[in-house]
Amino acid sequence: MKESKTTHWIGFDLGGTKMMAAVFDRNFNLTASRKAKTKGLNGKNDGLERIRTTIRGAMEDAGIEAENLAGIGVGCPGPLDLDRGVILHAPNLGWRNVNLKSSLEKTFQCPAVIANDVDAGTYGEYRFGAARGARCVLGIFPGTGIGGACIYEGRILRGRTGSCMEIGHVKVRSEGPLCGCGRRGCLESVASRLAVSAEAAAAVFRGEAPVLQSLAGTDIANIKSGTLAKSIRGGDAAIENIVRAAARHIGSAAADVVNLLAPDVIVLGGGLVEALPDLIVGEVRETVLAGIMPAFAKGLKIVPAELGDNAVALGAAALAAEEGGKA
Amino acid sequence: MKESKTTHWIGFDLGGTKMMAAVFDRNFNLTASRKAKTKGLNGKNDGLERIRTTIRGAMEDAGIEAENLAGIGVGCPGPLDLDRGVILHAPNLGWRNVNLKSSLEKTFQCPAVIANDVDAGTYGEYRFGAARGARCVLGIFPGTGIGGACIYEGRILRGRTGSCMEIGHVKVRSEGPLCGCGRRGCLESVASRLAVSAEAAAAVFRGEAPVLQSLAGTDIANIKSGTLAKSIRGGDAAIENIVRAAARHIGSAAADVVNLLAPDVIVLGGGLVEALPDLIVGEVRETVLAGIMPAFAKGLKIVPAELGDNAVALGAAALAAEEGGKA
Repeated sequence: MKESKTTHWIGFDLGGTKMMAAVFDRNFNLTASRKAKTKGLNGKNDGLERIRTTIRGAMEDAGIEAENLAGIGVGCPGPLDLDRGVILHAPNLGWRNVNLKSSLEKTFQCPAVIANDVDAGTYGEYRFGAARGARCVLGIFPGTGIGGACIYEGRILRGRTGSCMEIGHVKVRSEGPLCGCGRRGCLESVASRLAVSAEAAAAVFRGEAPVLQSLAGTDIANIKSGTLAKSIRGGDAAIENIVRAAARHIGSAAADVVNLLAPDVIVLGGGLVEALPDLIVGEVRETVLAGIMPAFAKGLKIVPAELGDNAVALGAAALAAEEGGKA
Repeated sequence: MKESKTTHWIGFDLGGTKMMAAVFDRNFNLTASRKAKTKGLNGKNDGLERIRTTIRGAMEDAGIEAENLAGIGVGCPGPLDLDRGVILHAPNLGWRNVNLKSSLEKTFQCPAVIANDVDAGTYGEYRFGAARGARCVLGIFPGTGIGGACIYEGRILRGRTGSCMEIGHVKVRSEGPLCGCGRRGCLESVASRLAVSAEAAAAVFRGEAPVLQSLAGTDIANIKSGTLAKSIRGGDAAIENIVRAAARHIGSAAADVVNLLAPDVIVLGGGLVEALPDLIVGEVRETVLAGIMPAFAKGLKIVPAELGDNAVALGAAALAAEEGGKA
């Protein structure tokens, strides 16, 4: 009997500004990876070509051919048609109706699956990271927005055609600021990295944050997660207060989710959490524990993500394997 | 080959004030049922005996023997240990650590399962009622508290050891009234039948609800769902406003759940909904649609429950069958 030629999985992380193709062996050890800029504004055909080129580059680095591929998993910004494998609309990329699954299957002659990026990242943490093997995992990733995901008994909870768990749009303030979704008071309108940066810029403008002023000024495009962390470590109490308040809002929304889904582990990830893990996880933990039914507090772990930038690619590759690749 | 003797299932609804044993044939047609008062204050041993007697009575009416029983399903007030089949603590009954599963299995010599009553009722609506066959069902039952449940791809979403989906404890008001759980602003503190009755009594006291005044006075024990419905139909605008505001709070919490779980159907049940289905379902629908991501509105149905008082017993019996009864 001939040994199967399929030895590797591709995990792909399609982000708003950059993309990454990673090659994993059968045990999900990273063999090689390539990064590229997404350049969504160049259009979807350029984007698809860029994705294929990045995958081919990573395969070259790993020394494998298309016949070695068992499957490809891609974590994408939504909304998606999960069953057909189509990106319906990616506002950050400016793309509509990208038939990613069929395009990749045609090019690489192996099965491909797509998943929401936060779902893939949380699945990665469930399979290989901070929530390994937990019965029910809630993932929360504050970034430009705030993404959420739930892995329940080994499977991603999903909507009828696309992803669900939009924790960024749980209402935390009756009369809050306007959210990108058009409603008011959504969690991400008060607690995303973007909301925090905007509040921080105002604090700089008012002269309350001298360290941040010297690092970034009042342009929110310059106020990134790492900059916020430096400002707080440098002694900007106003910035620390803003970040703590955001973390409490996240904790408040997370408490609602705990009362609904009783997860065993909450994983917090993304740039802001990576830059300030103790401060944010600590504040979220305190707020969650104050807001949940006592029965759900028993055994609940609230932890920072472990896999960093590899979570989405790892999770997507593992999902491709879970959904059945080429023998 | 001898034909199997097991021809029937028992579904049992253990409520705070009354209990019901129902006998169903293999196709879940109701064959017979018996009701009794729960009298929880007489203690758990009396309660267990009362449960057994009620089941025996229903079996007698159905003309079946213990050897005909394929299994027993019981919907109970929580918190429960689902795997061991134990009622850990039923505050409304005053019972602790009732090993219901093993007690029933010993008496009736067939498999028994227990489930949270709202889970069982929602499962009943999923199997036989308003949400038949839906991929993801959210059940909301406002009563003394507000119970929630979710049936996801045919299975009840649950916590590690007990039920979850405590929609009654989703926070809807930052500085709301004190809830039975000890925190403030929970949905059930502002929108349960009890909260509505308390507000209605105050309206009567202020002379704003003449119809309700003549029907019930200011004692909230007399202000039941049917009484509220009569008061509204009789023209008490103040009472209608109170009920509408409660329904909007329910809609607001339901919108959060939709943004998280993207259900296909929301089923609203319980006495208050049964008494005022159009008013409550309509108000909930309007609030939900205003509060959810557009993608989740597509195809979402919001409907009143269909099975009334039989939902819990039917759902519990179907669960017993699902978990595998006697051949």
